[in-house]
Amino acid sequence: MKTYRVLIDCQDEKGLVYKISKVFFENEFNIEKNDEFVDSENNKFFMRSVVKGKLEKEELQKKLQEVLPKDANIKVIVPQKKKIVIMATKESHVLGDILIRHFDGELAAEIVAVISNYDVLRPLVEKFGIDYFHVPHTDLGRSEHEEKILALLEMFEHIDYIVLAKYMRILTPNFVQKYENKIINIHHSFLPAFIGANPYKQAYDRGVKIIGATAHFVNNNLDEGPIIAQDVIPVDHSFSWQQMRKAGRDVEKVVLARALNLAIEDRIFVYANKTVIF
Amino acid sequence: MKTYRVLIDCQDEKGLVYKISKVFFENEFNIEKNDEFVDSENNKFFMRSVVKGKLEKEELQKKLQEVLPKDANIKVIVPQKKKIVIMATKESHVLGDILIRHFDGELAAEIVAVISNYDVLRPLVEKFGIDYFHVPHTDLGRSEHEEKILALLEMFEHIDYIVLAKYMRILTPNFVQKYENKIINIHHSFLPAFIGANPYKQAYDRGVKIIGATAHFVNNNLDEGPIIAQDVIPVDHSFSWQQMRKAGRDVEKVVLARALNLAIEDRIFVYANKTVIF
Amino acid sequence: MKTYRVLIDCQDEKGLVYKISKVFFENEFNIEKNDEFVDSENNKFFMRSVVKGKLEKEELQKKLQEVLPKDANIKVIVPQKKKIVIMATKESHVLGDILIRHFDGELAAEIVAVISNYDVLRPLVEKFGIDYFHVPHTDLGRSEHEEKILALLEMFEHIDYIVLAKYMRILTPNFVQKYENKIINIHHSFLPAFIGANPYKQAYDRGVKIIGATAHFVNNNLDEGPIIAQDVIPVDHSFSWQQMRKAGRDVEKVVLARALNLAIEDRIFVYANKTVIF
Amino acid sequence: MKTYRVLIDCQDEKGLVYKISKVFFENEFNIEKNDEFVDSENNKFFMRSVVKGKLEKEELQKKLQEVLPKDANIKVIVPQKKKIVIMATKESHVLGDILIRHFDGELAAEIVAVISNYDVLRPLVEKFGIDYFHVPHTDLGRSEHEEKILALLEMFEHIDYIVLAKYMRILTPNFVQKYENKIINIHHSFLPAFIGANPYKQAYDRGVKIIGATAHFVNNNLDEGPIIAQDVIPVDHSFSWQQMRKAGRDVEKVVLARALNLAIEDRIFVYANKTVIF
Repeated sequence: MKTYRVLIDCQDEKGLVYKISKVFFENEFNIEKNDEFVDSENNKFFMRSVVKGKLEKEELQKKLQEVLPKDANIKVIVPQKKKIVIMATKESHVLGDILIRHFDGELAAEIVAVISNYDVLRPLVEKFGIDYFHVPHTDLGRSEHEEKILALLEMFEHIDYIVLAKYMRILTPNFVQKYENKIINIHHSFLPAFIGANPYKQAYDRGVKIIGATAHFVNNNLDEGPIIAQDVIPVDHSFSWQQMRKAGRDVEKVVLARALNLAIEDRIFVYANKTVIF
Repeated sequence: MKTYRVLIDCQDEKGLVYKISKVFFENEFNIEKNDEFVDSENNKFFMRSVVKGKLEKEELQKKLQEVLPKDANIKVIVPQKKKIVIMATKESHVLGDILIRHFDGELAAEIVAVISNYDVLRPLVEKFGIDYFHVPHTDLGRSEHEEKILALLEMFEHIDYIVLAKYMRILTPNFVQKYENKIINIHHSFLPAFIGANPYKQAYDRGVKIIGATAHFVNNNLDEGPIIAQDVIPVDHSFSWQQMRKAGRDVEKVVLARALNLAIEDRIFVYANKTVIF
Repeated sequence: MKTYRVLIDCQDEKGLVYKISKVFFENEFNIEKNDEFVDSENNKFFMRSVVKGKLEKEELQKKLQEVLPKDANIKVIVPQKKKIVIMATKESHVLGDILIRHFDGELAAEIVAVISNYDVLRPLVEKFGIDYFHVPHTDLGRSEHEEKILALLEMFEHIDYIVLAKYMRILTPNFVQKYENKIINIHHSFLPAFIGANPYKQAYDRGVKIIGATAHFVNNNLDEGPIIAQDVIPVDHSFSWQQMRKAGRDVEKVVLARALNLAIEDRIFVYANKTVIF
Repeated sequence: MKTYRVLIDCQDEKGLVYKISKVFFENEFNIEKNDEFVDSENNKFFMRSVVKGKLEKEELQKKLQEVLPKDANIKVIVPQKKKIVIMATKESHVLGDILIRHFDGELAAEIVAVISNYDVLRPLVEKFGIDYFHVPHTDLGRSEHEEKILALLEMFEHIDYIVLAKYMRILTPNFVQKYENKIINIHHSFLPAFIGANPYKQAYDRGVKIIGATAHFVNNNLDEGPIIAQDVIPVDHSFSWQQMRKAGRDVEKVVLARALNLAIEDRIFVYANKTVIF
């Protein structure tokens, strides 16, 4: 018996659930979990099923294709450890949190490597026996620096997700396009408030009573990619912006971990710069 | 074209989604919303669909019965205003909140009557043109008092839900059985903490840092019925228990309204003293 | 014995707490509650005390002035019901919530009047025996319309706060200046995200996972006045923007009520476009 | 110039703030932060000040004693790294989180040692260069086992706090008395709900819609010590109790870290089995 995660999205039309569940039923699959959503504004259908059966992955894919519209996106995924690369700069709290979760067995993922433009985080990373690559950006243009990172990334057999764990450099469109909807960033504000640099200082100056963090896929516009997860905590006048930053760390860690787990479990659809999450 | 809410629960078995969606498809129903859940521990299947089509309600019910197991609970519901009765005592904040929501058109419900063991809330209720029945409990045993309320309730043609909006008397098993899973109570604590009287005083004495409220269906054990909704707010040492009570009011109001809306929209299954909510 | 709320703010210097508490001690005041804050970035001192004693208000004020820097703001306030005017347009949920809280005795305030540019909310307001003034804006320029409202406001003996309960017109600088730090608005987003019109639509389009509301004093820049209170609730892809708006209502109501209570209890300092709240 | 944290609690009486601030003023201390609270029910006064001045610690203590009631508790504390011992069993998520926070410089503390009744966590702890002591309980009575741990603890020069990071054994009164208000435990439920074993299973069985965690000082009654911090997250019917446990981990980590930081910063008073926290 094999378990598959089946992700389908296409234009909505009558009978989709019937046709899909018929394929499962006639091929003796057991449905363990099933979620659907119709975006009625855009007439778009989304479905994610976890099914158990005997059919080979390719056969199930083919049988679904036969009953579904031609433009349907159909993914039949064998649940297995995702391969992720983490990019960081100097701050250790988010990276450290991922390393501990990974050590703890909480993430169904293999951390292939950590890449940083500084060498500061090496001791932390190597404690956990994970490869650390220092790619300094000194004296390099943005593209030159990225070329070196891209070359490194291409050395790895397969990468499911790149996690920006407080990587403090802006990626170029060239980089982003190569890993579309595969780069997850944690932004230290409740987006779209406080886009850009030092959001805690911005939040402090504005006198907000709540601060937050946002995990999102990276696209070409800084901090404007599809949002995966957000959370907030209360603050008040007694917080300096440095204290806000300290308080915000816990939210950053928790929100990024939540987003990463959703990605790892193949629970996210990206559509119209938004996410549908089951 | 008619819209129905279809609620089905039964023992889980292979092909349920297929069989149900086949009925919808072959009878040209459009599925507008669809939610399923399998309680794998108890091997129990739950499904709620909102569908649009031409078939009469009774026919759809029959066709579903033909394909589903004999023990399946199948409800085909025409969305229409629910009829609710509110029971209260002397406190006005929860009752007032429901009256304003009702006035505001937020609740898809008709308030048939408000019943109270005091006459205190009459002026508030009558402002909104709603019938107020004062059923005093003075000099009456619990059952005698309830008999009077039950007689009153039976005068109304139909009651979907009885909402206890800070009704401060305990209902007898006799009363509860007559309206099984139809009586919604708001308890002013985060159950199961602080069961019983004056939970804010209990919370204060225990020195908790969070207080909450719980909306639940009423069963024979005080404060132990199936939970529908809960929420909390932070407190600290500077709160007296009276201030906790004041702060808690907002949570009580919001949680009860949320639970009431879920009930009105037929989104709750009750099973094993718990709720499945879509 | 009289109770006073004493609010002091001035440049910070050594000995302020000593000098203030000496005045209280030597004049046999009991301190029931005491809060201080020093904004060390701006070297600014804030203190709010609730004290009980025999001295007349003016005498206490004078004695505090004698020991404090010349530029100190010193308010000695006798706790009494604040006089508030509510301005609204057509939506009833926030207004209704305030009316019920007022009826319930939760607000230490007298609602002097409700003013609206439509006549829609009159039946609701008059249920509670409160004066309703319809000041239509049809065929009037913004200033002309405001002149009529201002003339009305001046008829009332005293106004502590003007509450904008979903008043959907932008106030001119002329109006705002007349009631500086006395106009409280509820904005239906987590500011500074989604400034301006239809924030729920903006939030939906951006695909956020949390929506919120912000109560703030009104200044000349739309939605940029000092923030008093904020709160949020989670949403997901299944929410249309209309459903976000419905879900957001509860947050709007609770946040505005929280801000209004803080103002009524003289717990807010406004400084540098921010609030210090004790 | 020296910085002190001054913590005072005593029976309330007139003039306490005056007398204390007089000592600060006359000895040329600058008050950087000041918090007071009067528990009017118990007529009890609490004050915490952060002050900067030239006086030696012992002199300041003496001068405060001279003006305060005899029964006053006065602590003049020099801010310095606290010495903490962590006790754990087999689970790594809470321990790992503390180790990363410590590595990250977030905790103003030195981790003197980690003690466990198993040897499982040694590799994790030794990555961070921290001493790990395995004190097996096999074939030992509870007291015998604790004697071994106590002997170990006494070897360390000084211990400010013992942190139970998912230490799964109940401590005896003998142990607890030796470290009164110095042992911080994380309980994986929103106390007082679900006292005792496997609270996630209990929460699942009860069908709650929110789960939480509680950090508290340990006293002789299991899970009944003074609460320091609590937080919650929403769950629903789709969570198995194992998923609740997984979801709860993040709350456990954040709540324990928050409590530990409060303790380390000397911000907690314990009184009447409750905490006053500034």
